[in-house]
Amino acid sequence: MKIPEVLQIEVVHRAGSLAQVLGVVAEAGLLVENLVAVDRGPDRTIWELTTDLDEDFDRTQLDRISDLPIARLLGTSDRVFTLHEGGKIETSSRLNIETDQLLRDIYTPGVARVCLAIRDDPSLQRQYTGIASSVAIVTDGTAILGLGDIGPVAGMPVMEGKAALFQQLAGLSGVPILVEPGAVDEIVDAVARIAPTFGAIQLEDIAAPACFEIERALAARLDRPVLHDDQHGTAVVALAALLTATRSHDLDLTACVVGQIGLGAAGIGIARLLQHHGVRRLIGTDLRDDAVATFTTLGGEARDLETLMAEADVVIATTGARGLVRPDWVRDGQLILALTNPDPEIEPQVALAHGARYAADGKAVNNVLGFPGLFRGALDAHAPAFSREMLAAAAARLSSLAIGDHLVPDALDRAVHAQVAAAVYDAALAEHQTPLYSG
Amino acid sequence: MKIPEVLQIEVVHRAGSLAQVLGVVAEAGLLVENLVAVDRGPDRTIWELTTDLDEDFDRTQLDRISDLPIARLLGTSDRVFTLHEGGKIETSSRLNIETDQLLRDIYTPGVARVCLAIRDDPSLQRQYTGIASSVAIVTDGTAILGLGDIGPVAGMPVMEGKAALFQQLAGLSGVPILVEPGAVDEIVDAVARIAPTFGAIQLEDIAAPACFEIERALAARLDRPVLHDDQHGTAVVALAALLTATRSHDLDLTACVVGQIGLGAAGIGIARLLQHHGVRRLIGTDLRDDAVATFTTLGGEARDLETLMAEADVVIATTGARGLVRPDWVRDGQLILALTNPDPEIEPQVALAHGARYAADGKAVNNVLGFPGLFRGALDAHAPAFSREMLAAAAARLSSLAIGDHLVPDALDRAVHAQVAAAVYDAALAEHQTPLYSG
Repeated sequence: MKIPEVLQIEVVHRAGSLAQVLGVVAEAGLLVENLVAVDRGPDRTIWELTTDLDEDFDRTQLDRISDLPIARLLGTSDRVFTLHEGGKIETSSRLNIETDQLLRDIYTPGVARVCLAIRDDPSLQRQYTGIASSVAIVTDGTAILGLGDIGPVAGMPVMEGKAALFQQLAGLSGVPILVEPGAVDEIVDAVARIAPTFGAIQLEDIAAPACFEIERALAARLDRPVLHDDQHGTAVVALAALLTATRSHDLDLTACVVGQIGLGAAGIGIARLLQHHGVRRLIGTDLRDDAVATFTTLGGEARDLETLMAEADVVIATTGARGLVRPDWVRDGQLILALTNPDPEIEPQVALAHGARYAADGKAVNNVLGFPGLFRGALDAHAPAFSREMLAAAAARLSSLAIGDHLVPDALDRAVHAQVAAAVYDAALAEHQTPLYSG
Repeated sequence: MKIPEVLQIEVVHRAGSLAQVLGVVAEAGLLVENLVAVDRGPDRTIWELTTDLDEDFDRTQLDRISDLPIARLLGTSDRVFTLHEGGKIETSSRLNIETDQLLRDIYTPGVARVCLAIRDDPSLQRQYTGIASSVAIVTDGTAILGLGDIGPVAGMPVMEGKAALFQQLAGLSGVPILVEPGAVDEIVDAVARIAPTFGAIQLEDIAAPACFEIERALAARLDRPVLHDDQHGTAVVALAALLTATRSHDLDLTACVVGQIGLGAAGIGIARLLQHHGVRRLIGTDLRDDAVATFTTLGGEARDLETLMAEADVVIATTGARGLVRPDWVRDGQLILALTNPDPEIEPQVALAHGARYAADGKAVNNVLGFPGLFRGALDAHAPAFSREMLAAAAARLSSLAIGDHLVPDALDRAVHAQVAAAVYDAALAEHQTPLYSG
């Protein structure tokens, strides 16, 4: 797992001095992600150099920067940590409570009228509470990002990030809920018991296969939308990318043989959505027998990795294993999405050099594009559950908004999320709905 | 249960016209709480008249306002409901996420570094997440205000109100958690399972006796502060009021016979805190035998209502029953706090007229004074639990801040809550701590 680090380096103004510093960085095997002059003095400049470091990177290699006569490593910036100080979200009052009158209106005694109105007509909760615009972001911490089972508390920064994005991109209140790990029914019972608090439930970073069982049980028990983002959010954005890629190469996705490398939560979610889209032949591979079994139950066909690469027109890799796909396996004319972040199963330029018609990695397929609009649309439509039509509509809309040679639109463009929400809203109100779990 | 209503009345400019309107209002038996000219025209003014209406008030009596030649009832204002539109709280991002760099810092991939740091040193959750400044506001809806068992969803406006006040008065993130009603152990299991999300747990509007069992079980299971506000928050403010009242009448509270009318959650919380303060003789009465049994187990003595009134130097009523105390029962020189809102067990002016040395009602003893500073102080001190010393310190500080003939300070004065937090913080760090549940 590579994680970004910001190095602060003071460099004397002299022709070639910055090149010397970058030479040392290159010898350490580091890729420069960004380089910014943060303080330009009369005879020297302080640069912030962003790079990705492996967890076990030998930091003494960086000392060689200071061994240069024209440079000094001042330290590593704590920018990422500084941004996390005190957490990334807060619950705040929508009213500034400065007068006794307002206190009496929004607290006792005035609030009692609102409580009684909701008691008499529970549908008024939509109007007079924030329930209908809130989403619980639930994790047990068993599969946080690519970091594995690090526990729910260590996963909190991810949940807070999701919550921050819910508000920024879709105007929803995301509420992290960290659940102590336990048996599937214990987690389901706890979440179901507090579910009345929220308009919808997002399951996040829960390991397979428990994630499938938890999502299925909660969806069956609750009268509100439940979605496991790692499956369906990823699937929506992946389908959007595939739609764009096949369209721009005049291919019919439904007629392609799609090969899936990795059949975990993301892989299975993608398989289900591709089938709904009409893809007729899915082949797949995974190191875990139970993952392959889930895939074949859906109608997919098991292959070994090399055979899959030989047969597939379109390859989607979601394994977490960098460099898994050997370049000489790439077939002429193949479309390849290697989605593992930050290091894909095969680098796009390598795949292209070995004959791929098109190749992209996970950086081009940002997960953030899906969930804000998916939940906003479902909540606006008062949908009791997510359907495959709602997911497919989000994917189609995302693909239609992609510009130039991008597979998907800009994740920070607020209008994109409003568009996704509108597409999901329309799909939710349409007559035919296919439940995410149909038996 | 009386709830405030705002009447909008158009009145022609003529001497005596407003008096005529108020005459009709008086005949309907209504007390004018507030009267504001909201739109002054050339020949008529629109007034907003705030009054408390019983739930079963006959509204046709108000039509008589329009029967007057000089006035017209335009309608009732929806001010309280308007303020509740969309809910009173929201979860928001503390950062404005407009750039790709920021997205990468606070979400993937940057967030991974923070997750790993917390995995390696869980205490860093205090610094890099909002956990340590968040409080779950948990209710099962079984005792919402004085409205009874109306369910958790109908109680949401109260929980949102608490959350709004947490932020406004103490800078904490309050997070409502609505729990489906159930057996004590089911509720305890659900709350304990999601407890890692929050720095502390506030239990709210849960009916007795379940509230005692739930609080005791959670406090035993969790390593973070748990407080049932209806018991202890009320007790802190009531003790503060008693300290002020006895001090201003040169009485020693510990030497007084304190009579408690009503031994529910609030009554029992007050009894426990009074005992901790050193009050030697507590007598009490309640219609429920189990409530009386809880009280006598603590060392209180049971009395019937009339005997209690005859023996007590100080009377504290928390029954929910308006007008319960007959004026001729008042003993010369008694101190009376009739705390039921909005209608006390005996009106203060009636008690004073019948010989009480001092009397006040619940409006003078605002519950909001307690919980924000209690939780802020406990969280700032990293306290693993609330202790009686922390509650007593809050009460003493509140009493010391009362000005003039007020029993307690202004609930909207932010400095008061900072003071309470500081007092609780100091008490939490002191050597001797008495747990709220000592076997």
